[in-house]
Amino acid sequence: MIERIAILGTGLLGTSVGLALRASGFRGSIVGWNRSQEHAEFAMQMGALDSVTADPIEAARTSQVVLLSVPIYATLDFMEKLAPVLGSEHLVTDVGSTKRMISEAGARLYNTFERAAFLPGHPMAGKERGGASLGDANLFRGTVWLFTDDPAAQRSPRSAALVQAWRELVTAMGSKTLDLDPARHDELVAWVSHLPQFVATALSALLEEEVGDAPELKDVGGRALREMTRLGASPFSMWRDIAHTNTEAVQAALEALEQRIAHLRENLRTPGLRDEFEQANRFRRE
Amino acid sequence: MIERIAILGTGLLGTSVGLALRASGFRGSIVGWNRSQEHAEFAMQMGALDSVTADPIEAARTSQVVLLSVPIYATLDFMEKLAPVLGSEHLVTDVGSTKRMISEAGARLYNTFERAAFLPGHPMAGKERGGASLGDANLFRGTVWLFTDDPAAQRSPRSAALVQAWRELVTAMGSKTLDLDPARHDELVAWVSHLPQFVATALSALLEEEVGDAPELKDVGGRALREMTRLGASPFSMWRDIAHTNTEAVQAALEALEQRIAHLRENLRTPGLRDEFEQANRFRRE
Repeated sequence: MIERIAILGTGLLGTSVGLALRASGFRGSIVGWNRSQEHAEFAMQMGALDSVTADPIEAARTSQVVLLSVPIYATLDFMEKLAPVLGSEHLVTDVGSTKRMISEAGARLYNTFERAAFLPGHPMAGKERGGASLGDANLFRGTVWLFTDDPAAQRSPRSAALVQAWRELVTAMGSKTLDLDPARHDELVAWVSHLPQFVATALSALLEEEVGDAPELKDVGGRALREMTRLGASPFSMWRDIAHTNTEAVQAALEALEQRIAHLRENLRTPGLRDEFEQANRFRRE
Repeated sequence: MIERIAILGTGLLGTSVGLALRASGFRGSIVGWNRSQEHAEFAMQMGALDSVTADPIEAARTSQVVLLSVPIYATLDFMEKLAPVLGSEHLVTDVGSTKRMISEAGARLYNTFERAAFLPGHPMAGKERGGASLGDANLFRGTVWLFTDDPAAQRSPRSAALVQAWRELVTAMGSKTLDLDPARHDELVAWVSHLPQFVATALSALLEEEVGDAPELKDVGGRALREMTRLGASPFSMWRDIAHTNTEAVQAALEALEQRIAHLRENLRTPGLRDEFEQANRFRRE
């Protein structure tokens, strides 16, 4: 029933979805839009898209599924613009890393009988650098794709069927789907995704200050240092929207980690250090 | 000139040195000792050793090179025991992760004309779990092996030649050697090695508390979370000695990171967040 998908935003995620849809056997057409059209054309050359458009609204109108794969505030903008021009023959879904604000907008603007369906989504996949050129048909294999769907949605049978069809495509791309409440989602990812990112950013920024002028010293750290700072390369443009739309949960997680590091620092020479290592070992038990 | 090497401690590093020496063409014999003899026998079955001994002092006496690959305090104990029974026909070297205390003991107990040479060493290689079974002939390929040799050492020509021969074997195992002053070494590794480890321990311990009872939620974090907590599996037994022998430098590094995380937390919604991301990006520039 999905004959045409519009991918609005052909960065790493949008391009990877296009490639993964193709690799998993999706036979409909895929149209792409990107703020910089050059990048969309590159995604098309990679095989992620059949065509490129300069008019995202028109592309959405002529597709059954619209994937918003742009930063969070741009996603919210598109949601406002698309809601009045789409109907129950359409599903809009997204890949934003925080879900409370997006789910609220979805409930307000979508999910009635007349309007398009909106399914808030969040693939837990990515790379520390963005861009179509890093697009990867296997990016979603073995990962979790979170949804925070609205149980109060009043959908037409057609809308409901589109939601189901998109969930099946996500599974076909190799992801395991998991459904969460939007507030629980944002709290959970503050711990398991946003906290690791912001710690890597703080650690990388600090080390740049301490040893950045002596590149040969970075080699000394080896694999452990490379891994702990890999996310230091992540772009501000994406993380700014996450910091703005999940501020309180991220603040709480960061403050808890500051206290935990201080506790470890005060116990470097006491039996408390053993307790910390044993607790950490438990997290990594196999 | 090196016909026999004694490896005292056949954990991950000792076993890997034995395997790497063989793989790089070393033709002399390798004798191994381990507190648990069973593990030494396992290392021998893997091809890291030619023989296993229950008497580490005798094994040292009958070898030209003695590699101490045990935790730091055990290394200091062996240095005390071996100094009076070895002479200028011997070189003792080690793999300890802090070098100030070990280098001081080396200057006090070794490196005169009558006594054995002591060369403090620190391969920047390892895994998050220890043990002979993870031994790897390629563990040192592409890594840095630090030395903190004593410029005041009064060595016989024979001792000096043994030091040179061991440095060549280290290069043959695939490491790039780098010489540092012991105090500078301990300060540097506090930043690029000990800080990443203790942060990973604190982060893993915190996450075990927050989401440890819901294993399916760990999957949500994906690769980023796995990498940022891999070192959470590191054993207390090794890191206790590091925490005890480099306490001040590690405390300073941890405190600096606490402040950096607090700064980031206070700037999640200000332009300061961009500065932190840009500074972190610089550390990971290619």
